Amino acid sequence: MFSNRIDGLRPSPIRAILSVIDRPGMVSFAGGLPATQMLPRWSGTIAPQTLQYGPSEGEPSLRAAVSDQLRRLGIDAPPERVMILSGSQQGIDLVAKLFIDPGTPTAVQFPTYLAALQVFRFYGARFVGVHTADAGEARLAYVVPTFANPTGACATSAERDALARRCLDAGTVLFEDDPYRDLAYEPCDRQPVAARMGGGSWIYQGSFSKTFAPGLRLGFLAASADLFPPLVLLKQSVDLHSSRLSQLIVHDAITADGWNARLEELAAFYRARRDTFEETLSRHFSDLARWRTPSGGLFYWLQLHDTYSVDTRTVLDEAIARDVAFMPGEEFYPNEPRLGTMRLNFSHADAAQADQGLRALAELIRSRTRSGRSRSRARTSSCTPARMPASPGSS
Amino acid sequence: MFSNRIDGLRPSPIRAILSVIDRPGMVSFAGGLPATQMLPRWSGTIAPQTLQYGPSEGEPSLRAAVSDQLRRLGIDAPPERVMILSGSQQGIDLVAKLFIDPGTPTAVQFPTYLAALQVFRFYGARFVGVHTADAGEARLAYVVPTFANPTGACATSAERDALARRCLDAGTVLFEDDPYRDLAYEPCDRQPVAARMGGGSWIYQGSFSKTFAPGLRLGFLAASADLFPPLVLLKQSVDLHSSRLSQLIVHDAITADGWNARLEELAAFYRARRDTFEETLSRHFSDLARWRTPSGGLFYWLQLHDTYSVDTRTVLDEAIARDVAFMPGEEFYPNEPRLGTMRLNFSHADAAQADQGLRALAELIRSRTRSGRSRSRARTSSCTPARMPASPGSS
Repeated sequence: MFSNRIDGLRPSPIRAILSVIDRPGMVSFAGGLPATQMLPRWSGTIAPQTLQYGPSEGEPSLRAAVSDQLRRLGIDAPPERVMILSGSQQGIDLVAKLFIDPGTPTAVQFPTYLAALQVFRFYGARFVGVHTADAGEARLAYVVPTFANPTGACATSAERDALARRCLDAGTVLFEDDPYRDLAYEPCDRQPVAARMGGGSWIYQGSFSKTFAPGLRLGFLAASADLFPPLVLLKQSVDLHSSRLSQLIVHDAITADGWNARLEELAAFYRARRDTFEETLSRHFSDLARWRTPSGGLFYWLQLHDTYSVDTRTVLDEAIARDVAFMPGEEFYPNEPRLGTMRLNFSHADAAQADQGLRALAELIRSRTRSGRSRSRARTSSCTPARMPASPGSS
Repeated sequence: MFSNRIDGLRPSPIRAILSVIDRPGMVSFAGGLPATQMLPRWSGTIAPQTLQYGPSEGEPSLRAAVSDQLRRLGIDAPPERVMILSGSQQGIDLVAKLFIDPGTPTAVQFPTYLAALQVFRFYGARFVGVHTADAGEARLAYVVPTFANPTGACATSAERDALARRCLDAGTVLFEDDPYRDLAYEPCDRQPVAARMGGGSWIYQGSFSKTFAPGLRLGFLAASADLFPPLVLLKQSVDLHSSRLSQLIVHDAITADGWNARLEELAAFYRARRDTFEETLSRHFSDLARWRTPSGGLFYWLQLHDTYSVDTRTVLDEAIARDVAFMPGEEFYPNEPRLGTMRLNFSHADAAQADQGLRALAELIRSRTRSGRSRSRARTSSCTPARMPASPGSS
């Protein structure tokens, strides 16, 4: 079930020891622990213990708070099977390490989160589509069912049930990545697929980056009982544990009275941003591309019309030179990319910035397509771009 | 030179984009960035930008401060080749990923830091002694020349020169881990081996855990120009970047006027702890073990006399039950362990705790050896343990 390298994974006494050093009365000669009184008196509100080494799994208080939230989602995740991550990107690396050898069949959505693909590819994954017949042979299925990255799609209840069933039937480990679930702008079924995996092997992970602050680099995972222990060993081997200060700050935030109100405020704010973006996008891109309005998450996924289709990776540098950054959609495809795709985040830019950026981007694509056309069809008289015949793959 | 998996490592546009999003006037549709005004107003003293996503290499200000320190040590490490790590454990994982395939000859000290061995072993390293003839075939040499973990030894100038020369001659990459350098209690040559590697390939890493606070999980590395770019890609793939809040706190601490005074205060404090520990150790262990007084760092390395030699891993659980934790020395050996070794941290416990802990530990070892003896030599009359004949390997 696990990757070959897991054979070399042995429990280290470091973990056993980190887990007892906070015990009252314990004398520790074990770790390389600074003397507590020599820790910086950096802030009166921070307990010195927060600045000391801590347990690999994370702070018990934060694990318990996350466990509470997961239970409400129907996920079987007691605090003992919740681990705090240094951002959910770390969870992807840990899970890939645990499962992927060169050639391991790994099921993913086409397209899907590019930095997950990057990590899976690095360990040698062979990608198969999660909705294809090949998925039955996959050892691991990585999915973002709720407001997928990059497409923004939200899987239906039937799709979630079917995915869980396929994983259970084929003995495929479900790896559900759910960073956007709280950013919902219209009702849809958001119950995790992991909540439907009774008896199977699964990892579910989430992030505090979207609801609290990315700069603290904090996320979490929960896993079925067969997978949790090796994941903790892997976590210990990559950074011992996550920042205790970040954990403290996030714990206080998500257990505060105002947390749910903050989540509602956040969703309302981003819903308004999305609506403004939609309007701006329609103004600048309606003749250039098609898209679906996302019901949650942070992204629009654009497919340029054939007439304007370029490999958008070739446009990025010039876009940055014009002070607008976007994510080329081609990067999100595991194998052969579909050209002419772009992922546009709508949460960061305000209305004026969105207008400025989308205008610049649309101009760039028009000009690139014109110059591509003029190279390939020299001296064709100009006409309105929307009425030009398709020139697929023009650079 | 690199591991096979590095063939699958491709630059991601995420990095290029993370590095420009802070540029004034830039409109970013690229990342999944929260709107800056929706970031928590967690503290009036923290710029909102600190809570946003940041560059994989780390905060420019902190990289520059580290670069300044490294230049004073003679290391060729401009800010562009300094990377901030989520603790130096992370550097070990990144470097192992970069170089180690199953069977890759990896030179280390015998014994050496157990969590480095764990990571190297996990990727399939074959260990050779850094001071043996086999070291010539090693792809990577991992060393802690200054106050080594676990032995506390400090390499001489001649040893440092020779190590650099061997790496340069054999084309071995030097990986120097230097977390303890500021905890020096007697004069010794501490100039990094990396400062002697002109023209070669090297990685040098350090930690803020010993001089500032482990709980923030922050360290750094610098590397030769051939190695830095792939290390940044690997860093991005494991956690995007380290906590910006931690980086800000550490930057402010290490650039403050009082920093050098703090380092001196720290060394004085730990020197006194070491002296107290030495005295207490002599009281409880002089008939049980031998050791060298460490001239820096955080550890005593004990070799139990043959009479009392047990596999100290078998003693750990009982020691913890008696409220004293230590690190079994056997864990620090890459291949066959030397039995009867222990690593004892002297920085964390105060005088009373050291006395209580060392007394309990000495009693445990005496009782364990007695019971082992009474099993193997039933009804031998008791005599003073120090005069018993050797019973190697008794459990």
